[in-house]
Amino acid sequence: MYLAKIYVTYKKSILDPQGEVVKSALHRLSYTNVEAVTCGKYFEIKLDTTDKAAAAKEVEAFSDELLININMESFTYDLSELAEAVD
Amino acid sequence: MYLAKIYVTYKKSILDPQGEVVKSALHRLSYTNVEAVTCGKYFEIKLDTTDKAAAAKEVEAFSDELLININMESFTYDLSELAEAVD
Repeated sequence: MYLAKIYVTYKKSILDPQGEVVKSALHRLSYTNVEAVTCGKYFEIKLDTTDKAAAAKEVEAFSDELLININMESFTYDLSELAEAVD
Repeated sequence: MYLAKIYVTYKKSILDPQGEVVKSALHRLSYTNVEAVTCGKYFEIKLDTTDKAAAAKEVEAFSDELLININMESFTYDLSELAEAVD
């Protein structure tokens, strides 16, 4: 069993209005050393497989296919093995 | 300069309807070994400070105060030092 953690953010060229809003809100709450904020989506997906390479290929395929808008967003991911749940 | 990566997800006790929708969509796209999906929010925040402990305290404070709904969500974070941008 593998756990994929997928981080989706806007591409550098795309304006992130939500990030700007969060930054100004943090400044109003006196967190003035906040320099930049990027907002995005986060997925944790459990995959029932023992093959790490296959899991990585699958994560890349379904992230492009379903989880991101390939015109505006990009993703990175981490893959870690999960200890089998003992019944 | 520090970079905080903040991962916000629903608490275990809270139903994650979006996760269920993504899971069934992945199954329809024939990714049948997807066992579970958790959807959440992701933030990358740059902090202009050289003190890691102060940065950690600040991240915890503004995450509770602004970034999450403390009744339904919880967060984890990673803090890494950023090389100073050379002008």
